[in-house]
Amino acid sequence: MSNSFGKIFKITTYGESHGVGIGVIIDGCPAGVKVDEAFLQSEMQRRKPGQSKITTQRKEEDVVEILSGIFDGVTTGTPIALGIRNTNQKSKDYSHIKDSYRPSHADYTYQEKYGVRDYRGGGRSSARETAARVAAGAIAKMYLEQAGINIQAYVSQVGSLKLEKQYQEMDLNKAEENIVRCPDPTMADKMIQHIDDTRKSRDTIGGIVSCVITGTPVGLGEPVFDKLHAILGQAMLSINAVKGFEYGSGFEGVKMYGSEHNDRFETENGKVKTTTNHSGGIQGGISNGQDIYFNVAFKPIATIMNDQESIDKDGNKVTVKGKGRHDPCVVPRAVPIVEAMAALTIADFMLRAKTNKI
Amino acid sequence: MSNSFGKIFKITTYGESHGVGIGVIIDGCPAGVKVDEAFLQSEMQRRKPGQSKITTQRKEEDVVEILSGIFDGVTTGTPIALGIRNTNQKSKDYSHIKDSYRPSHADYTYQEKYGVRDYRGGGRSSARETAARVAAGAIAKMYLEQAGINIQAYVSQVGSLKLEKQYQEMDLNKAEENIVRCPDPTMADKMIQHIDDTRKSRDTIGGIVSCVITGTPVGLGEPVFDKLHAILGQAMLSINAVKGFEYGSGFEGVKMYGSEHNDRFETENGKVKTTTNHSGGIQGGISNGQDIYFNVAFKPIATIMNDQESIDKDGNKVTVKGKGRHDPCVVPRAVPIVEAMAALTIADFMLRAKTNKI
Amino acid sequence: MSNSFGKIFKITTYGESHGVGIGVIIDGCPAGVKVDEAFLQSEMQRRKPGQSKITTQRKEEDVVEILSGIFDGVTTGTPIALGIRNTNQKSKDYSHIKDSYRPSHADYTYQEKYGVRDYRGGGRSSARETAARVAAGAIAKMYLEQAGINIQAYVSQVGSLKLEKQYQEMDLNKAEENIVRCPDPTMADKMIQHIDDTRKSRDTIGGIVSCVITGTPVGLGEPVFDKLHAILGQAMLSINAVKGFEYGSGFEGVKMYGSEHNDRFETENGKVKTTTNHSGGIQGGISNGQDIYFNVAFKPIATIMNDQESIDKDGNKVTVKGKGRHDPCVVPRAVPIVEAMAALTIADFMLRAKTNKI
Amino acid sequence: MSNSFGKIFKITTYGESHGVGIGVIIDGCPAGVKVDEAFLQSEMQRRKPGQSKITTQRKEEDVVEILSGIFDGVTTGTPIALGIRNTNQKSKDYSHIKDSYRPSHADYTYQEKYGVRDYRGGGRSSARETAARVAAGAIAKMYLEQAGINIQAYVSQVGSLKLEKQYQEMDLNKAEENIVRCPDPTMADKMIQHIDDTRKSRDTIGGIVSCVITGTPVGLGEPVFDKLHAILGQAMLSINAVKGFEYGSGFEGVKMYGSEHNDRFETENGKVKTTTNHSGGIQGGISNGQDIYFNVAFKPIATIMNDQESIDKDGNKVTVKGKGRHDPCVVPRAVPIVEAMAALTIADFMLRAKTNKI
Repeated sequence: MSNSFGKIFKITTYGESHGVGIGVIIDGCPAGVKVDEAFLQSEMQRRKPGQSKITTQRKEEDVVEILSGIFDGVTTGTPIALGIRNTNQKSKDYSHIKDSYRPSHADYTYQEKYGVRDYRGGGRSSARETAARVAAGAIAKMYLEQAGINIQAYVSQVGSLKLEKQYQEMDLNKAEENIVRCPDPTMADKMIQHIDDTRKSRDTIGGIVSCVITGTPVGLGEPVFDKLHAILGQAMLSINAVKGFEYGSGFEGVKMYGSEHNDRFETENGKVKTTTNHSGGIQGGISNGQDIYFNVAFKPIATIMNDQESIDKDGNKVTVKGKGRHDPCVVPRAVPIVEAMAALTIADFMLRAKTNKI
Repeated sequence: MSNSFGKIFKITTYGESHGVGIGVIIDGCPAGVKVDEAFLQSEMQRRKPGQSKITTQRKEEDVVEILSGIFDGVTTGTPIALGIRNTNQKSKDYSHIKDSYRPSHADYTYQEKYGVRDYRGGGRSSARETAARVAAGAIAKMYLEQAGINIQAYVSQVGSLKLEKQYQEMDLNKAEENIVRCPDPTMADKMIQHIDDTRKSRDTIGGIVSCVITGTPVGLGEPVFDKLHAILGQAMLSINAVKGFEYGSGFEGVKMYGSEHNDRFETENGKVKTTTNHSGGIQGGISNGQDIYFNVAFKPIATIMNDQESIDKDGNKVTVKGKGRHDPCVVPRAVPIVEAMAALTIADFMLRAKTNKI
Repeated sequence: MSNSFGKIFKITTYGESHGVGIGVIIDGCPAGVKVDEAFLQSEMQRRKPGQSKITTQRKEEDVVEILSGIFDGVTTGTPIALGIRNTNQKSKDYSHIKDSYRPSHADYTYQEKYGVRDYRGGGRSSARETAARVAAGAIAKMYLEQAGINIQAYVSQVGSLKLEKQYQEMDLNKAEENIVRCPDPTMADKMIQHIDDTRKSRDTIGGIVSCVITGTPVGLGEPVFDKLHAILGQAMLSINAVKGFEYGSGFEGVKMYGSEHNDRFETENGKVKTTTNHSGGIQGGISNGQDIYFNVAFKPIATIMNDQESIDKDGNKVTVKGKGRHDPCVVPRAVPIVEAMAALTIADFMLRAKTNKI
Repeated sequence: MSNSFGKIFKITTYGESHGVGIGVIIDGCPAGVKVDEAFLQSEMQRRKPGQSKITTQRKEEDVVEILSGIFDGVTTGTPIALGIRNTNQKSKDYSHIKDSYRPSHADYTYQEKYGVRDYRGGGRSSARETAARVAAGAIAKMYLEQAGINIQAYVSQVGSLKLEKQYQEMDLNKAEENIVRCPDPTMADKMIQHIDDTRKSRDTIGGIVSCVITGTPVGLGEPVFDKLHAILGQAMLSINAVKGFEYGSGFEGVKMYGSEHNDRFETENGKVKTTTNHSGGIQGGISNGQDIYFNVAFKPIATIMNDQESIDKDGNKVTVKGKGRHDPCVVPRAVPIVEAMAALTIADFMLRAKTNKI
């Protein structure tokens, strides 16, 4: 396995869905970051299950305990360990999949790879793991905030319902004012209705989370393999259910001519800027000081409430029952996870950039 | 910088566009791989400039010298160093950009990040660096071939010209029979014409490279952060001019319902397979034995033959002349690069998977 | 900081002496290792304070809680998190060093490096951190035992009292039969007396821990930088209070001629062996199948019960009081720590060696 | 294999003794280091064979070619590749060991580990690889010199001839004035005579290299596993023929009481210093601003000119002829290698320390 992310601001997560608990060690957080525990806990609330009618009704309080690395409200440079106890596991809910492989889940691949698996709730492959990322991401956000960097994600698509407005045209703070986390209230209502309909039909639906990072200095990203967008891409693709990543002009940009796509440099009040930003704030894998923006595609999650045909570990046909408490659409709860992974990526590059010159 | 890729089968590349040469060290290639030097050189031919009328007319022979790690035609387990001399640099071509920032290039970001840059031909930020990747990828391919794994990329879109056929409907070997590397001859002709028209208008155009990996065992990929598709994504996004990555159902998959998207398991001749493959051969970040397929979006490259307005390092307005010898569309030459990065990724995961069980 | 050790069997530790707790994540332990919780706890007992009259009288029960990665008594290949709560911190004992720098401690260097420090009991620099290593080492030992590898350390020197017998001349199991952990009972008595005398004079004394590893296959160690003895050396030198490391003939070997020092190969029952073993079981950085043995030098620990002159953070002269509960000699309790670090090193190389050949 | 060293200032070496050439990539050298090619080449001269009557009479000019990463005499932050062609290989000298295992060499372990080996001159296991380290170390030294850090190694023991003077009592610059590199002229003469006598008896002898680092800032070293002395230890132990490492009071320190061993802090001209330096300039794994000093033990090298009994790969008894051109004592040529590895270690920690605080 590889449960670490980052080169300097490095996290390592642990824990299974239905084990004793989950958590994370942050190794390499610089000393001197002021830590606001209430903010940390509030980030957990944004991700936690049961927060609205369009999320799973499972209840996890996700209280984070700080075990080390913070003293008198400030990071000390030593490893920060954050632990979360699992409190609401209904393990018996999962006995039906002990020997069966749920379609498009990781049951089969884990069993083959390791020869053994903790089948309860998906074990390590469960998206419960992302709670640890959100906790670590909250620390990264506090570090970045002190450097003037802001990260804001929001839902821009649910199924075929696509928000056509660009991020500059909206007040992104409005995203947190509705349960689907779309900054456009009209579209938000439609999305909520669509998710609720999907839930009633015992099905699931996909969506897209968009994210904007403002305030980054010029110089983040480490070519040639750890280009800023390459590691952002890895970070996002490592989140459960993600199928695609694009930044700046993205997939649409392939249709453009170079003469249209190129971002012209100019100076404004002595500061270099570009008149357009198809580059998405990144040139040659390095931030250029403009806004960084990207999209993350989430598939419809695999757990549906309807019965499905599958096989068991011996290859026999079985019917997998639609049981448990799950999200009809993952994107509302994915918003803080995308932000957390973005924050962890940027925090790491902030530190790496300190070593570029003598 | 971070010029290494891979955890066990690890490459480190070096070299600037107009320096003495470029190259790569492969550290961690297992002993016992039979090395076919002719194949290695033929891979270089697929990437080299000047190969057809729709690529740059720059000439680089890109002869690879094997410096270490191979003895009596077999890898010895020691580091394999491959060197390529630069032979056709016309450095004076670049004096005009010594102090100017070309739009959407890395001139500005490198200058700011390092305080100094080798401006000749983009220096380290030039796509010339990818020649070293192709050389290393050729070694990875030889290793994978002996394990029965095949990697095949092709051009599936140029500008708005999109190949609608799925990879299963075509003979992918036909991709190498035309200069744009599209396996559909009719579409290939259209694409070639489109690129040629773009070249004549002194502009550039984007495109998409698709890739299919067959023959992988179940179990490749290291959750939770080094999921197979997450590292494939990083690998692809690290290639010059890439703006997006998607695998399996990708961005289109967000529109689907879970009941449609889920891939049903069944057994065929005692072997587990899925009836559909929206998962793109990867579940929970681990290969499931089905075909792995993905798309990589390339922007129109930034170097165009028309003059462009920009600024110099002091912020003064300048006109950047359209000079040099460049590709009107990068995707035909990107095909072997995508394959190389895929081969390097899979080779690394093949070795990592050996350590999963006692 | 760098709180991780190992490339594949990788541990990351956290925790301060007087914080909430300490612990470790093991990422990369192969699936299928049978876990004996009683053995894990018994290893903790060997390191814990208060175990005899010649150790600190501080009491810590060091109960390890398994938080993840083990299911039905077997490792699952997912990260194994082990947590230990701190129970007996007397933080007020340390208020006297809040602003003072204890001689030969890490107070000054931590303060300068990070600008802030958790001064209670040395915080992160306390040897309490090694409890997490012993817990992780116990898992490594279980893995190695299933591969037939055994690790045994013992005390071979206390102050000037040096055990002249070679390890082959003694029954190393006897080391656990006395409180100083020296396999020679007569010498053990002398050492115990010496430590007790030192304790009574409110002083501390150094010592040497020797270690023997048997049953390793040929092929462990990854040249040229991760030679087996180089990483063993790093592992040992990373333990608190260690000043030196030597393996095989060590420092004495420099006096020998090559004709004496060279170990002659021969075969015995079809198996390759050497007639002497000055190489210490390692040639060219790779295990050769013979016993691996090495010595680790520990300085007298810096905390003494007598008052000492020093300075405070403003450079003023202060007297540091001899307070707290500390070990007069660290080596008896260091034995399981040396074993743990050796086990972690060997476990990592066992996994790395799986990737040497196709 | 693992042919990389360093986390940020990271080197990767390649090359076999009798292949095309050897070399190194430095990835992570900060931009802005002024490079003096003459100094680089002069460092190679200090290590090269054939430099005096007490070294091997093999001739290698070891001319370093700079392939990338330096532009207009300054490092650019991109990877620095340095190549050295092998020019004086007499490969036929080694046909006699194609199938035989030389005693205390790496022939047997490489063969078993990889199933194949380049037997010519030891291939990758040859100390020829260290030429690449010296080249990289020269770049590291130029970086450190600009930061006011100086590294000086010298020979302090040959066989039983031990220099009893401490480094403070001598002018270390005198070490380069004689061929054995001992700063005490009288002892130097004795050592030279001893090595020459050993050479005449067709044998080899061991020795110790001592090293002193001055001018380091407080704060280098990354606990808990990458303590400054732990990585210095790994660095030194990774050099061919090294059997032991100790720093500060080292193995002798175990005999001391804490009350003697502790280094008292005081201030001098507003600067913190210690009155003694048993700590060797490192406390808690972090540099404290005092001189760093350590010893490295080298065994007598295994290649002797007398015939030796051994076995071949099939286990048959063979006589290994004493052939080739080799060093009777490795320490004079090891001095620049020890310095190079120290420089690489310190350079890496200088960069890592930049990330400790916000």
